[in-house]
Amino acid sequence: MNTIETMLSHRSVRKFKNQPIEESMLQQILKAACSGSTMGNMQLYSIIVTQDKEMMQKMAPFHFNQPIATNAPLMLTFCVDINRFYRYCEARDVVTDAYSNMHCYHWAITDTIIAAQNACVAAESLGLGLCYLGTIIFNTPDFIDVLNLPKHVIPLACVAIGYPDENMPLTDKLPVEALIHTNTYQDYSDERINELYKEKEAHPNTIALLKENNMENLAQVFTQRFKKEDNEYFASLMIQSLVKQGFMK
Amino acid sequence: MNTIETMLSHRSVRKFKNQPIEESMLQQILKAACSGSTMGNMQLYSIIVTQDKEMMQKMAPFHFNQPIATNAPLMLTFCVDINRFYRYCEARDVVTDAYSNMHCYHWAITDTIIAAQNACVAAESLGLGLCYLGTIIFNTPDFIDVLNLPKHVIPLACVAIGYPDENMPLTDKLPVEALIHTNTYQDYSDERINELYKEKEAHPNTIALLKENNMENLAQVFTQRFKKEDNEYFASLMIQSLVKQGFMK
Repeated sequence: MNTIETMLSHRSVRKFKNQPIEESMLQQILKAACSGSTMGNMQLYSIIVTQDKEMMQKMAPFHFNQPIATNAPLMLTFCVDINRFYRYCEARDVVTDAYSNMHCYHWAITDTIIAAQNACVAAESLGLGLCYLGTIIFNTPDFIDVLNLPKHVIPLACVAIGYPDENMPLTDKLPVEALIHTNTYQDYSDERINELYKEKEAHPNTIALLKENNMENLAQVFTQRFKKEDNEYFASLMIQSLVKQGFMK
Repeated sequence: MNTIETMLSHRSVRKFKNQPIEESMLQQILKAACSGSTMGNMQLYSIIVTQDKEMMQKMAPFHFNQPIATNAPLMLTFCVDINRFYRYCEARDVVTDAYSNMHCYHWAITDTIIAAQNACVAAESLGLGLCYLGTIIFNTPDFIDVLNLPKHVIPLACVAIGYPDENMPLTDKLPVEALIHTNTYQDYSDERINELYKEKEAHPNTIALLKENNMENLAQVFTQRFKKEDNEYFASLMIQSLVKQGFMK
């Protein structure tokens, strides 16, 4: 498959063969991750590699014990990291806190997710399967603790990778035109929403999901699945982490 | 080139041939962008396509009038977008503000940068060159204004794309090991920093940069280039945008 075909074939894989990832493959994935664009070429991220099952077990409760938190041979946790750059500055006798703010945090989140997605595309091009664990941004204080992250480091993305042991169909997505605007943002009327969501709402996945939850539409499913009080609780944890790690300014 | 080779060959391109991007190529790039992982399959981003030079001129001052803000045939601006999902909810009579917080903002930034990086890898696989414009996260209030972004939409990444008209060498990067930790974060001693930055500091790019700036090391260059007072000013703009667009909670 060529590169674009690889990307168009993306589906989340949550079951893996009991087969480790070869070291040379891991190195290729990490090298691809570290070859992406980065703000001012400062590389404001770190990647934590987990292959040790005990370590996965330690993190699992903060990933809400989903099976994928422990069933993959490889987990990569991508962190915003301004600490290394500060350590470099200190080692060159330049003491600074110029990057401890929400502006530079946004430089670093961009760097970090670029690295994560490069790793994912590289892994899929090698025939591996993967899934992002969105849970990494739920319990940030616990991950900071268990991963021993110093000030100016925040976990932002986590990917479980392995040889696929399931053959999932492609996920239903909105038509591309739903996500595209030309020159300026055109807000969505009810009519336009109906048109853009028609295919997704008629998709067998949606129909199964609605039946399973005994609900009428995806708006109900998502607002039930991710409740306001929970989202705001996890927002308070994220803000607590941003303060503690030195970015909330 | 295979996918990983494409990624390892990445370099920023800032000069482009005066040749538009074919519509079919643009569609492939956008489709790849929209095929990435996304939190709960909610696709919390939008992509603003700019090919119109007048529109580029309008945005240019907020990109600090760098030549690349107007010299590429195509510019893609990737935005966090929870507005579309809210519009869908409203159209299904579910009125909610459950996503207006820093937790869900982090869902959306992950989705947004995944889409941006997929677009970049796709474009490079087609022989195009590109450069991220980090400036998009400097003057957010102005971009929100000029792009007509409603509440719950924030511009986060911007990529200029075209046929390369320069053949830049690969950027000097830190060795991969500098960015990798196993199981937990191992903080950097001065000794380790010296070891990891040795190659970068000896690189001809670095030597030229130091000479040009009449400085002794990269720490001096970067703390001069991105000053604390400027970073904090742009942080205040970002926070102002996060408040205005409904995420600072």
